[in-house]
Amino acid sequence: MHNPQLNRHGELQHLLTLDGLPREVIVSILDHAAPFTEVAEREVKKLPLLRGKSIFNLFFENSTRTRTTFEIAAKRLTADVVNLNVSTSSTAKGESLLDTIDNLCAMHADMFVVRHAASGAPVLIAQHLLATGRDHIHVINAGDGRHAHPTQGLLDMYTIRHYKRDFGNLIVAIVGDVLHSRVARSQIAALGTLGVPEIRVIAPKTLLPTAIETMGVRTFNDMREGLRGVDVVMMLRLQNERMAGALLPTPQEYYKVWGLTPEKLELAKPDAIVMHPGPLNRGIEIDSAVADGAQAVILPQVTFGIAVRMAVMSMLAGQ
Amino acid sequence: MHNPQLNRHGELQHLLTLDGLPREVIVSILDHAAPFTEVAEREVKKLPLLRGKSIFNLFFENSTRTRTTFEIAAKRLTADVVNLNVSTSSTAKGESLLDTIDNLCAMHADMFVVRHAASGAPVLIAQHLLATGRDHIHVINAGDGRHAHPTQGLLDMYTIRHYKRDFGNLIVAIVGDVLHSRVARSQIAALGTLGVPEIRVIAPKTLLPTAIETMGVRTFNDMREGLRGVDVVMMLRLQNERMAGALLPTPQEYYKVWGLTPEKLELAKPDAIVMHPGPLNRGIEIDSAVADGAQAVILPQVTFGIAVRMAVMSMLAGQ
Amino acid sequence: MHNPQLNRHGELQHLLTLDGLPREVIVSILDHAAPFTEVAEREVKKLPLLRGKSIFNLFFENSTRTRTTFEIAAKRLTADVVNLNVSTSSTAKGESLLDTIDNLCAMHADMFVVRHAASGAPVLIAQHLLATGRDHIHVINAGDGRHAHPTQGLLDMYTIRHYKRDFGNLIVAIVGDVLHSRVARSQIAALGTLGVPEIRVIAPKTLLPTAIETMGVRTFNDMREGLRGVDVVMMLRLQNERMAGALLPTPQEYYKVWGLTPEKLELAKPDAIVMHPGPLNRGIEIDSAVADGAQAVILPQVTFGIAVRMAVMSMLAGQ
Repeated sequence: MHNPQLNRHGELQHLLTLDGLPREVIVSILDHAAPFTEVAEREVKKLPLLRGKSIFNLFFENSTRTRTTFEIAAKRLTADVVNLNVSTSSTAKGESLLDTIDNLCAMHADMFVVRHAASGAPVLIAQHLLATGRDHIHVINAGDGRHAHPTQGLLDMYTIRHYKRDFGNLIVAIVGDVLHSRVARSQIAALGTLGVPEIRVIAPKTLLPTAIETMGVRTFNDMREGLRGVDVVMMLRLQNERMAGALLPTPQEYYKVWGLTPEKLELAKPDAIVMHPGPLNRGIEIDSAVADGAQAVILPQVTFGIAVRMAVMSMLAGQ
Repeated sequence: MHNPQLNRHGELQHLLTLDGLPREVIVSILDHAAPFTEVAEREVKKLPLLRGKSIFNLFFENSTRTRTTFEIAAKRLTADVVNLNVSTSSTAKGESLLDTIDNLCAMHADMFVVRHAASGAPVLIAQHLLATGRDHIHVINAGDGRHAHPTQGLLDMYTIRHYKRDFGNLIVAIVGDVLHSRVARSQIAALGTLGVPEIRVIAPKTLLPTAIETMGVRTFNDMREGLRGVDVVMMLRLQNERMAGALLPTPQEYYKVWGLTPEKLELAKPDAIVMHPGPLNRGIEIDSAVADGAQAVILPQVTFGIAVRMAVMSMLAGQ
Repeated sequence: MHNPQLNRHGELQHLLTLDGLPREVIVSILDHAAPFTEVAEREVKKLPLLRGKSIFNLFFENSTRTRTTFEIAAKRLTADVVNLNVSTSSTAKGESLLDTIDNLCAMHADMFVVRHAASGAPVLIAQHLLATGRDHIHVINAGDGRHAHPTQGLLDMYTIRHYKRDFGNLIVAIVGDVLHSRVARSQIAALGTLGVPEIRVIAPKTLLPTAIETMGVRTFNDMREGLRGVDVVMMLRLQNERMAGALLPTPQEYYKVWGLTPEKLELAKPDAIVMHPGPLNRGIEIDSAVADGAQAVILPQVTFGIAVRMAVMSMLAGQ
């Protein structure tokens, strides 16, 4: 079955992946997000766009941080939000994923925000909704396995556009554990679609997917070389659970070779921005002097992230 | 002390059990629920009936699924809902159940939705509220031990009435682990009160309570025999935790003898409906071909469940 | 850095500790709380004072009970509330406390309610907000280590004022595990500031902080002696985790010597009130006959606690 994220009019029906999402849809989401950044500055941070809608935060993998961003976005849109941390619930009782979905649909859900350890779970849900004719219910992928994290990719694009205006002449570097990163996959897809002429991927060989070049990126195994002259540095988070593994040396050794220090950052353009999806591993993939420095736009990413999520939610289910 | 679920005017004060609940009260709840099924179809699924009321979901036993149904029902009535998963909280600190209740009453609770592993806990709370003169605070039993699950029983009755209109000439079969099932107890009580002339209980002997016949049911230890000519098949969920026990053979053997297959279902009336409280154990107590088949009304049960809970909540505490 | 809980106009910017909080500020909070006790009696327990504000309940230490009081207070003020149980979240991923705070600030948080096992965590957060110029964001300490629990101390003062009117001629006794109690520290500070002429601390020597007399209290190691003639008895909760330790005898022995029985209570003034922060250890630090007796004001404490929290929240962030 095809990827069902666009309806037959080419409008966003679900947000599942940025891979293959048309340029005009991505731009439209970014454009929609802009006014929501102003809502957050108001005395009363509240719009009635999703009043009376039922949004279920379906987290099959624990992530307080990501769940919080969707919860606050939904509440500012006046939706009714229900958090389901499902690891300890129905599926523990042996209920299948799609039975859980069918149940929540029968409760008249309007939207599912889905985080799942298995790549493809949100697509599976969207296909099921399509197959059962429930096209008034929407799915947002909040991160699935190594596959995609589209709202993260979108907020990253929003951030780049905010600081660099035009994608057309940028060099963007993505640095770190690309192999295991759904964030990197969403970033690469969006950067390509938005016309970034040079996307670099900087990583140790053991953390590069095979055949990554087919995604239209240049790979570097030397961080200094890769950072030379870039406009945007997108750091990836090093998963703690990887650090214990055989793919990597100690955190100290990783930092020495792959950590973003002020000295390495000097190789980028003087006005280069530094991004990170958080949470930070200070002193491992990023030096505190960089994370807290003038070129970092890590906290603006978070702010824009709320606006982007409000935009996606209201585009999908708004009145 | 008597069961305090009716006040001195015979109106519903708490919902604790369907056993002994007068027919007119049950019918009144079902009648109240009907318009709430329409609210769920609206663009804005919201009514202000419980605005400013404080509802506490007091789950001493974890059940994301049941908690969700009450939470969404309360939010659609515009109540303030607070979820308390108490297993890891005050009672872990040694606070007694009634001290917890007294505390929440002192915070001006309006309603408790109580799930507890011990039979009788919600009745105990209701008696305590009565004894302390707090008759403006209401209790809904969301499942207690093996005792009762009255909102499940009511939504089952709503479902049967929806599809069969009249209870007066039905044959209804309840199939499975009756011994451990609070759902079965609530169903049997309500079916009897509503005048169902023949209630059958189909179960292996090891899963039948002793003296079950005193509840006015016919027992069958042969599933085929028991299903013959019935109008309604109410499957029970086989608790995973039982399956490991000595009472039962393997899941495969259980399925062979007690699983509802299309072939067994053919013994029922051609227009018989199949119900299940969920979550489903596909391939154990029910075959997927039946669960997803034309006679299954399992998802409508969930939909009606929200309406029934909104009805009970608004009857108890609505303005 | 100085304690940043007052802004340059001497107004409450954060609520971190009662130690050093000026008398007029404490009295002002108590005065603000009074009308909120009436809100709780209304049919619709709801005020729009915090509409559109985002309040984060940041519980680094689990406490369903305390979290519930803040959650219900915030919801009655129409705030958007997000609960973060952080022990299993970002900090588990290695994110620092202040990175978590920066992130939530970037989501346009208006207020943090912070419970933390480490003394000083809320002060650290407030200092960080001050240092980064974010003076529109407020912190309420919901209990930090052995340091302070200011809303508990304030509700205790509200309760004393409610029953005794004037602080100026009272004898108040605090009884129990003072050594480990943040509640006791907040109580002693507030009682002193409000001009209570005699504050007694009654505890076994092993549970008294060294140099406690410098806080302006009289210490007693004999409970009967200490209770003689007091107007207010403030019992402390014996932490279960202490009971296993070497500092204490068995619960039975503790009760015999340090439990508040009707017989011991007779030594206090006939109109003395008995307070307890909850949850109660019946039969350990307090006899049920006392806890449920005519002199106990334990449940009114809870009621006043909601009003006091609503007062603090609306003073900090209200329109």
